[in-house]
Amino acid sequence: MDLDAIFVGGGVIGLSGAWRAARRGLSVAVVDPAPGHGASWVAAGMLAPVTEAHFGEERLVSLLVAGADRWASFAAELEETTGLDIGYQRCGTAVVALDTSDRAVIDDLLELQWSFHLDSVRLSGSQCRDLVPALAPGVRGGAHVPGDHQVDNRRLIAALLRACALSGVDLVASEVVEVTTRVDRSATGVRLIDRSVIEASTIVLCAGSETGLLGGVPPDVLPPVRPVKGVVLRLRGSASVPLVTRTVRGLVHGRSCYLVPRADGSLVLGATSEERGFDRTVQAGAVHALLDDARALIPGIDELELVECMAGLRPGSPDNGPFVGWTEVPGLAAATGHFRNGILLAPLTADALVAMVVGNPVPDPLSGFGLGRVIRGGSGHAASTSARPISTRTPER
Amino acid sequence: MDLDAIFVGGGVIGLSGAWRAARRGLSVAVVDPAPGHGASWVAAGMLAPVTEAHFGEERLVSLLVAGADRWASFAAELEETTGLDIGYQRCGTAVVALDTSDRAVIDDLLELQWSFHLDSVRLSGSQCRDLVPALAPGVRGGAHVPGDHQVDNRRLIAALLRACALSGVDLVASEVVEVTTRVDRSATGVRLIDRSVIEASTIVLCAGSETGLLGGVPPDVLPPVRPVKGVVLRLRGSASVPLVTRTVRGLVHGRSCYLVPRADGSLVLGATSEERGFDRTVQAGAVHALLDDARALIPGIDELELVECMAGLRPGSPDNGPFVGWTEVPGLAAATGHFRNGILLAPLTADALVAMVVGNPVPDPLSGFGLGRVIRGGSGHAASTSARPISTRTPER
Repeated sequence: MDLDAIFVGGGVIGLSGAWRAARRGLSVAVVDPAPGHGASWVAAGMLAPVTEAHFGEERLVSLLVAGADRWASFAAELEETTGLDIGYQRCGTAVVALDTSDRAVIDDLLELQWSFHLDSVRLSGSQCRDLVPALAPGVRGGAHVPGDHQVDNRRLIAALLRACALSGVDLVASEVVEVTTRVDRSATGVRLIDRSVIEASTIVLCAGSETGLLGGVPPDVLPPVRPVKGVVLRLRGSASVPLVTRTVRGLVHGRSCYLVPRADGSLVLGATSEERGFDRTVQAGAVHALLDDARALIPGIDELELVECMAGLRPGSPDNGPFVGWTEVPGLAAATGHFRNGILLAPLTADALVAMVVGNPVPDPLSGFGLGRVIRGGSGHAASTSARPISTRTPER
Repeated sequence: MDLDAIFVGGGVIGLSGAWRAARRGLSVAVVDPAPGHGASWVAAGMLAPVTEAHFGEERLVSLLVAGADRWASFAAELEETTGLDIGYQRCGTAVVALDTSDRAVIDDLLELQWSFHLDSVRLSGSQCRDLVPALAPGVRGGAHVPGDHQVDNRRLIAALLRACALSGVDLVASEVVEVTTRVDRSATGVRLIDRSVIEASTIVLCAGSETGLLGGVPPDVLPPVRPVKGVVLRLRGSASVPLVTRTVRGLVHGRSCYLVPRADGSLVLGATSEERGFDRTVQAGAVHALLDDARALIPGIDELELVECMAGLRPGSPDNGPFVGWTEVPGLAAATGHFRNGILLAPLTADALVAMVVGNPVPDPLSGFGLGRVIRGGSGHAASTSARPISTRTPER
């Protein structure tokens, strides 16, 4: 018997969707040669809708806020299901400026945040240092965003993998080479690299930046995502005497970086944003730039051990918003383009995917982020028109 | 039957000594839990007696020059024995200064080199860029040392391991916990971590910076070496369009760094010099400093892939010269303290160790680098007084 859904891609989006779908009693598979080891693995795990607010992206900010609101219950349920601690904590973010122009940029962002009624407070330089004593004396000021939270992305991945296994998700460690279709062009399943085929009523493409590369369907039905390389460093410090205890986002002469502390004393330092195609190499210049900026803000990082330099490829979209909805191919859905916000939006996206698989419309606010907004003829906002029932033998196919 | 010699430590010194001794027909063992993976593995492989010439170290410079002179035939014989290419090449060194004070330092070193009749040529900034086109426009000048050569240290280690195996050296992958001695306090062998004992007429301590930690003999008979941490980065570039084709040593606002090109397009970038005890962690500040200096000299390194950050512990000595000679314990020799010059001095040290094992005096110029020069009552220059015959039953023990 065919499955209800196949998730092509086992990152945080695919695993979250598959887990939620399986909890609903649906039969699902996730196909990925190395589940959880793409961009989700490299990420820092900031859940920061406020500090991700940018000018001209008001609609996206509302989505991010909704995504953050969904996190607490998602985390609780995941931890209860698996018995694993995913490091979910509301540690707040200190946003700091190194020079006066950086400070002016942060002041403008504060105005923007306040216009969205987001909770953030302006800080003087000394108030910044009260909040984060490790900051350099030269820090000019900044802001405090008490509501930002974080999750340990690698613990999250481990928990999602266990949750999937516990709820009966079939984790297929293979590569999908193409979507299989019927004569009427509706999707029927996926062909793996060993030529075997798995069939399902719904195929969800959630392969991050690689989603646009899939074969078997015309390329123009696939969402126009591109890889945006992010280099992230992991530093090891003392758990008993941590260098910082809350997330620090900094502007350093116009360049931004972040430092996210983990419970074990380690720090995640990111991230570059590079348009270099499907290139995962970590270049010396990227490592230098990250260290240069981070130590300008927090000199003490010099003493931490550098334990990892890794690059991930964020799935970028033309307007920085995700694509969650049906493609023009019946039975073929996509959930990608989450750019810097994949972990933040995973719970909300998972809910939307379950709705789609069972034949319901994409719920707000993700309903505004269908594929139609940038692809000619895509279903876009009217996602529900392509939604199909979950029965495995649908006559229209 | 006892062995003729046991080499405690399988770095470049121990492996070279063991190979040469086995070629002489001696029965030898090397004991090391991970042969070839200490400081020798991290090193850059520069064979640079001229650019290692420092004020107040005239005697050491003569030794380094002699060490370099011994290299060509050593390399040829090792490659012939093993059929392996060890990347030995005379590529010359460009010494470059970033600012005018750096230039003044290099000018002083040139005077010193000339006073030793070493072959080096002063260069203007544009002459430096003619020699190394990738140099930054701001480089102020420097020097060219045509005679410096290099070896690929990891290929060297691989070749020495094979040469040892081919010549019958017993490679014992274990840790030595102590030297075993007779009632008369002469050394008889070593006890391994599994409590088993291997016996030999001569025990050679060549465990690099750890040589002073060995048990079984009074600590004050061991050479006073200390670990001097060096962080080294490995960058990967293009083999067909290499960024640099000769070794570059630079002074950057008073800090020195080097870039050693390999045949495959990779670059070895080193090295910090840190007094932190037996700590092999790679700290963020060290990586930053190396990249900061290197990219100031050669901006193109930003585009190279950073493939490795590793720390090695050089065996430092009080006067930066090696200790090669007998300890006060009969039958117990040492060869350590080579600091930054272990690979350069390995062939010469190996010759000296073979001489000692067969009962001959330590040959010049290493005869001046015995243990007695810093240890009360050590044998020092009069090394031959402790030299013993290679027969396995010597009545005096």
